[in-house]
Amino acid sequence: MQHFASDNYAGICPEALAALIAANAGHAPAYGDDDWTRRVSDRLRALFDTDCDVYFAFNGTAANSLALASLCQSYHSVVCHELAHVDTDECGGPEFFSNGSKLLPAKGEHGKLTPEAVREVVARRSDIHYPKPRVVTLTQATEVGTVYRVDEIAAIADLAHASGLRVHMDGARFANAVAALGVSPAEITWRAGVDVLCFGGTKMGLPVGEAVVFFDRALSEDFAWRCKQAGQLASKMRFLSAPWLGMLEDGAWLRHAAHANAMARRLADGLAAIPAARLLFPVEANGVFAELPPALIDGLRARGWRFYTFIGAGGARFMCAWDTQPDSVDALLADLRELAG
Amino acid sequence: MQHFASDNYAGICPEALAALIAANAGHAPAYGDDDWTRRVSDRLRALFDTDCDVYFAFNGTAANSLALASLCQSYHSVVCHELAHVDTDECGGPEFFSNGSKLLPAKGEHGKLTPEAVREVVARRSDIHYPKPRVVTLTQATEVGTVYRVDEIAAIADLAHASGLRVHMDGARFANAVAALGVSPAEITWRAGVDVLCFGGTKMGLPVGEAVVFFDRALSEDFAWRCKQAGQLASKMRFLSAPWLGMLEDGAWLRHAAHANAMARRLADGLAAIPAARLLFPVEANGVFAELPPALIDGLRARGWRFYTFIGAGGARFMCAWDTQPDSVDALLADLRELAG
Amino acid sequence: MQHFASDNYAGICPEALAALIAANAGHAPAYGDDDWTRRVSDRLRALFDTDCDVYFAFNGTAANSLALASLCQSYHSVVCHELAHVDTDECGGPEFFSNGSKLLPAKGEHGKLTPEAVREVVARRSDIHYPKPRVVTLTQATEVGTVYRVDEIAAIADLAHASGLRVHMDGARFANAVAALGVSPAEITWRAGVDVLCFGGTKMGLPVGEAVVFFDRALSEDFAWRCKQAGQLASKMRFLSAPWLGMLEDGAWLRHAAHANAMARRLADGLAAIPAARLLFPVEANGVFAELPPALIDGLRARGWRFYTFIGAGGARFMCAWDTQPDSVDALLADLRELAG
Amino acid sequence: MQHFASDNYAGICPEALAALIAANAGHAPAYGDDDWTRRVSDRLRALFDTDCDVYFAFNGTAANSLALASLCQSYHSVVCHELAHVDTDECGGPEFFSNGSKLLPAKGEHGKLTPEAVREVVARRSDIHYPKPRVVTLTQATEVGTVYRVDEIAAIADLAHASGLRVHMDGARFANAVAALGVSPAEITWRAGVDVLCFGGTKMGLPVGEAVVFFDRALSEDFAWRCKQAGQLASKMRFLSAPWLGMLEDGAWLRHAAHANAMARRLADGLAAIPAARLLFPVEANGVFAELPPALIDGLRARGWRFYTFIGAGGARFMCAWDTQPDSVDALLADLRELAG
Repeated sequence: MQHFASDNYAGICPEALAALIAANAGHAPAYGDDDWTRRVSDRLRALFDTDCDVYFAFNGTAANSLALASLCQSYHSVVCHELAHVDTDECGGPEFFSNGSKLLPAKGEHGKLTPEAVREVVARRSDIHYPKPRVVTLTQATEVGTVYRVDEIAAIADLAHASGLRVHMDGARFANAVAALGVSPAEITWRAGVDVLCFGGTKMGLPVGEAVVFFDRALSEDFAWRCKQAGQLASKMRFLSAPWLGMLEDGAWLRHAAHANAMARRLADGLAAIPAARLLFPVEANGVFAELPPALIDGLRARGWRFYTFIGAGGARFMCAWDTQPDSVDALLADLRELAG
Repeated sequence: MQHFASDNYAGICPEALAALIAANAGHAPAYGDDDWTRRVSDRLRALFDTDCDVYFAFNGTAANSLALASLCQSYHSVVCHELAHVDTDECGGPEFFSNGSKLLPAKGEHGKLTPEAVREVVARRSDIHYPKPRVVTLTQATEVGTVYRVDEIAAIADLAHASGLRVHMDGARFANAVAALGVSPAEITWRAGVDVLCFGGTKMGLPVGEAVVFFDRALSEDFAWRCKQAGQLASKMRFLSAPWLGMLEDGAWLRHAAHANAMARRLADGLAAIPAARLLFPVEANGVFAELPPALIDGLRARGWRFYTFIGAGGARFMCAWDTQPDSVDALLADLRELAG
Repeated sequence: MQHFASDNYAGICPEALAALIAANAGHAPAYGDDDWTRRVSDRLRALFDTDCDVYFAFNGTAANSLALASLCQSYHSVVCHELAHVDTDECGGPEFFSNGSKLLPAKGEHGKLTPEAVREVVARRSDIHYPKPRVVTLTQATEVGTVYRVDEIAAIADLAHASGLRVHMDGARFANAVAALGVSPAEITWRAGVDVLCFGGTKMGLPVGEAVVFFDRALSEDFAWRCKQAGQLASKMRFLSAPWLGMLEDGAWLRHAAHANAMARRLADGLAAIPAARLLFPVEANGVFAELPPALIDGLRARGWRFYTFIGAGGARFMCAWDTQPDSVDALLADLRELAG
Repeated sequence: MQHFASDNYAGICPEALAALIAANAGHAPAYGDDDWTRRVSDRLRALFDTDCDVYFAFNGTAANSLALASLCQSYHSVVCHELAHVDTDECGGPEFFSNGSKLLPAKGEHGKLTPEAVREVVARRSDIHYPKPRVVTLTQATEVGTVYRVDEIAAIADLAHASGLRVHMDGARFANAVAALGVSPAEITWRAGVDVLCFGGTKMGLPVGEAVVFFDRALSEDFAWRCKQAGQLASKMRFLSAPWLGMLEDGAWLRHAAHANAMARRLADGLAAIPAARLLFPVEANGVFAELPPALIDGLRARGWRFYTFIGAGGARFMCAWDTQPDSVDALLADLRELAG
């Protein structure tokens, strides 16, 4: 039975697994000084069409926290959306890695920051009793399944840079965003003003690992030491990096992401036909957020479905993964229709 | 060509890889709430013959640093051997995770602490201008290829506990030590007074990951939160835990460790017959440390061999892994003999 | 000209200065091992009628941050009012000292937390992706000039303790609260369930320094080391502690606080008679918060008065100090009346 | 009875106390936005003959730790002498403020680093498993009462800068060093290559407080926020800054330091005539270090004298302060002579 709790319930996609197995060949230098890591880094530079610096971290909490810590000091602050994963679901990871940087949440429709919202936070205080804003972080795709368009990112990045802030992108579902937008990875990142991207690998189909991509290479000074000290340098790095090769080689990453997005679309379309359900956000990537009557939520759970309830909204979150089957979506919808009577 | 630079140059052993592939079956709850993780934790409890608490971290720097941080506050200190990896090769990881705990190095023959050395450090200062000793950490097997016997650990642990210190074991090569000593894992850890063990998986043949084992369960309070915040909670945890199953199921972990130890023995025996080489430490686990004339070191390198030179000692370190072939050892020895002419 | 910007615009009160000068007699042991420090600590134990542990820190940011850090680990969180100084005006100090503990703001009328508000925050999440609540902090008197009654504190403390949380009191204006309530210091602190109090000295009339008072002495384990490491151990401690003697010896601390409260009352009464002004909070201690037309605010400033404008409320904050003169209050009121036309 | 335990056993010198009392005049803006603080900062700029940035911290641990933290990241390291106070007597303060920077001790005669010693430490490692050296710190006057000459500092600073390191000076006894050398403050600091100086006020005769002086102003970016967050921003700043005015106005700081130095000289000369005593270091500032037979040490203590014994050396440390009287020195010498029989 497949679940909709999270896209990290899915396993390793075939392309990543094949690459991992292929990399298990004899001895190789440790800590990233191997061919697989070099080749993936080059592939990522090609993908982004720029000479960026690439590092690998074990998970999203670490990738985001390390990246943010490299952009600010402990007495600085990070502007984020009030639903941002870095603020709500990383157990204080950014504060820990940065030794105290505060996250300053701002509001915004559909889980997205706006230049106005960022400006308001940045302008609020300038005294030394308040941590100085130094970074704005955008989640792409957002925590509620929406996607920033290129012009939206550019507008925020322009404001940020004009205010002395750097731009970080939490791309735990970056692939889903790129697939949804149909733009090039370059266009939606550095060409729009993103300084550092945490490119999510795990949700895309890897066993473990994310890439931290510095488009502004001056910002990555000594970042390798930062990773090492923080327990984020893999000794057998090839098993972290090689699976990326499998994902990137023939476009598997985008293909899988597009599939997950399509499954979310399929689910959303089905939900739209159920009067008791109400979609809470535009379905633009691989997540569907719906308000459901408590009886439906309980009923689905009684039938074994796993999914998160959306805090405070009386709603439910359904995430689709690279391997979500149409049949699974249809079975969930059938149960919903039956329960809705 | 195989290398002797580090046991982490080796890949994934067959048993671990098979278990990883077997775990890649459909959807599974994330963050450790899965069957594989439960089963491995139970297996580890059985292995240690006690109801210990088990957590998984991505690498040794993180496992050791998190464990040490859980044993002391920022203004405490950790007594370690002056060659301890936590002090010399983790780029300040323990200081970072603990927010400032100082490592207090002590001397000791063959890379091993003694009760006397620990006592001297603990007794040195008791004023508030100096961080209060709170932990003693032992590396087993040590950084120079030797092994603490049960009575040696017990003597240090007794002193430590009597002085209000806790006992941490850096077991990056714990398997090699157990294989060398021929004792039970329980005997060499909690029965001898170890409070927390970092049980190394990577060097044993896993792709990634170490286990943190709390024998004193009171010390693991809220440790799951600590791991999460520090970027050490794997979302697809099964790929971190399942490979342990493969290692533990039919004793593969000990078999592989014994093989690596035997290869080190074979290399040491060969070196003993080369007059130009001088063994620097007793060869008790899977590492061989030898003083070699510079010409030999250069010669080996010219022939493509990779190994570390031992800092300051004019010596060389040769590590054997789970997959080191007798032929590789013999080829290295043949080159040495030829070079020594 | 006197100002109403902050009670820390005032200087040293005569009793504190006399004690400081008296303490400047010859050589004395450093770091608190002197008679003045011992005597003040005993006086504070007598004042609180219990065998509490007493430490001195240089300022409120440090006192609060050190106290909070001693009550929780980096992956824990602190429930506070959304107007709490620790969250809004200490530049991330608590996060820095604790290495990442998150502050969880809650709402509450008149700047005061309620058991319901605390319960809501504590119950919100229990998963490891969110920092575990471990402390509730109360500001007494509050940031908006109100005061918690004994039963209000007891109700929150009871809930907190039942939920496994400790209770911290930010008493930057503790004297004003005690003077306002007419209760004993014991009654409003440990007898009501407060575990640790940061007793503000600076705003009370000292040149520098706050006292950290642990009523639950188990919580102060190794606190002296914590202070030392964090740069909060005065070498010439007598000059931090002796002024407290002057304050405590004949009740000067309460007399001065009562005076400041009375001046705030006088100002509030005058404001009540000005139709253009509207009091924003009950005036219970030494601060007066009023909504004023922008023209009045500008007008006062043009006449040289210094005061803070209350963020977002279009209002103004007027603080009275131990030395605020009735004439100063009357002059301010006269200007206000004149400007209000 | 005067003591020789530490120069911080002395009280406030008359000039500092007079300035403190004079500053206690009415209301003044808090947090350093006052005339006294501005005037002292200007005076310090004049004293150093350059447009430096000046900040005030409460004590030496904080001043040094904040300064070092501003010069390096958590994964960097600080080269220091093995006797450096920052390593031996600040309870891990530098590691705490920097969130993990390691101190790398080096040897050197008379408590002084040399270019060779610094070079050796810097060259030792360049891999990412070891914190990257980023700062060299010099204590002036040193912990053992010696003084770096201008050319000695310049040689170390040149090497440091050529190696990408910054130069920090722990000047807890900077006044004593300047008085001893007879050079200008500029000559012995920025002109010799010092980037940041922690100018000690407490031991010089202030009640509390040190100045952090950034000669390279680019390094002080946002330092005010750093101080605030770390609990080092005094609200009634005038009482921290004004005493400096008293010290600087008519050269009192140098006069007092020269006096303390002269008292140490007097003590050293007396000791030289006692065969049982042996001076351990050249007496160049205000401290005298001597090896004494245990019976003499015990005998002095029995007569009520307080002083530190020098760890491991069987020796004793005698510090002279701004107020040490010739009679006190002579009384100590008389007791020594009598005990030495």
